[in-house]
Amino acid sequence: MKIPVVKEILSANERVAAENRITFDASGVFVLNLMASPGAGKTSLILSTIDRLPEEVRPGVIEGDLASTIDADTIAARGIPVVQINTGGNCHLDAPMIRTALPDLPMDEMNLLFIENVGNLVCTANFALGADLAVVVASAPEGHDKPYKYPAMFASADAVVLNKADLLDVFEFDVDYFRRGLEMLNPGVPFFVVSCRTGDGVGDWVAWLLDRVDG
Amino acid sequence: MKIPVVKEILSANERVAAENRITFDASGVFVLNLMASPGAGKTSLILSTIDRLPEEVRPGVIEGDLASTIDADTIAARGIPVVQINTGGNCHLDAPMIRTALPDLPMDEMNLLFIENVGNLVCTANFALGADLAVVVASAPEGHDKPYKYPAMFASADAVVLNKADLLDVFEFDVDYFRRGLEMLNPGVPFFVVSCRTGDGVGDWVAWLLDRVDG
Repeated sequence: MKIPVVKEILSANERVAAENRITFDASGVFVLNLMASPGAGKTSLILSTIDRLPEEVRPGVIEGDLASTIDADTIAARGIPVVQINTGGNCHLDAPMIRTALPDLPMDEMNLLFIENVGNLVCTANFALGADLAVVVASAPEGHDKPYKYPAMFASADAVVLNKADLLDVFEFDVDYFRRGLEMLNPGVPFFVVSCRTGDGVGDWVAWLLDRVDG
Repeated sequence: MKIPVVKEILSANERVAAENRITFDASGVFVLNLMASPGAGKTSLILSTIDRLPEEVRPGVIEGDLASTIDADTIAARGIPVVQINTGGNCHLDAPMIRTALPDLPMDEMNLLFIENVGNLVCTANFALGADLAVVVASAPEGHDKPYKYPAMFASADAVVLNKADLLDVFEFDVDYFRRGLEMLNPGVPFFVVSCRTGDGVGDWVAWLLDRVDG
């Protein structure tokens, strides 16, 4: 009895994700789904990236959280179009939630949409949203063993950004060990080591992203 | 159709959790369910706690991970009885997984069992395991807004441990703001600020825990 029900839910999500993708393509909006553990720095990466965008790239943001508008308030304070989705306890965003949020965004005035998913290194990977890229944000304090412990998330990423790199030494973080785990799961996946606080490495990430947006 | 299926799963879990609790009580084993984001320091807290236990308290550990035996290997290297549960992608431990692991632990020789749940600040809170205490481990790098963003986890905790406190200043972590959020959700919940690296605060946590074990 159980498996057919789960399949039904997943396929409904896939269907709406495909509809979202059609909407995004028709609007000329390139979309990132940012996934990470709680507190890895998704909002910081979004803001650091936006700071480095050329004028012709006009961003918008969807913030996903169980509760609160903390991150959306931070984004709005910078004058960036933003919609907060409160999942009401749900552990991930899904495609219908994104669909519901779209009318509240000025899609005609945007060409790059950041979707910040709920902080969850497991469940978020299972629900397509219709994004062009799935980006996983890891961070130095979480430790270098994360690809080995949470393989599905890293295996399905289109890019991985390792944040808080200014603290690699403090956390005795072995970047080679992390990278070997990542390569085993997802050979050749683009990998960026950044610090949103110092700005180190963010330029390389943004250059790669802009290539994708243009492509 | 969907809701009855979900209820059936939940009640099956509750039933097995109650059976686990009977087994734990009959064996005289006090049980902690440690929940946290990935990389908050659950394993470090377990090891730091075990280091401070009096001789008559004999610990054991169940490690829950999607994949790998990294944490179990660390525990086993210290000569502590440990069982690794690999959830195979599942985002949380559940009561039947614990039940399956128990025959591999020397329950007669133990009186304190640490269950390290999967790193997930959302889903783990929804599945009772039969533990005496639900302990949430937060950490300074995750930021002081976590109780506001992940309220269910903090609302249902029997104790909250804030780890990596040696780095509070580095992360501009406002402990009062964190604590206000926690108090709003869970008035009077025991709250410990610790650094497993320096050992600061760990003694207070262990003293409180031992009071509970004896009580």
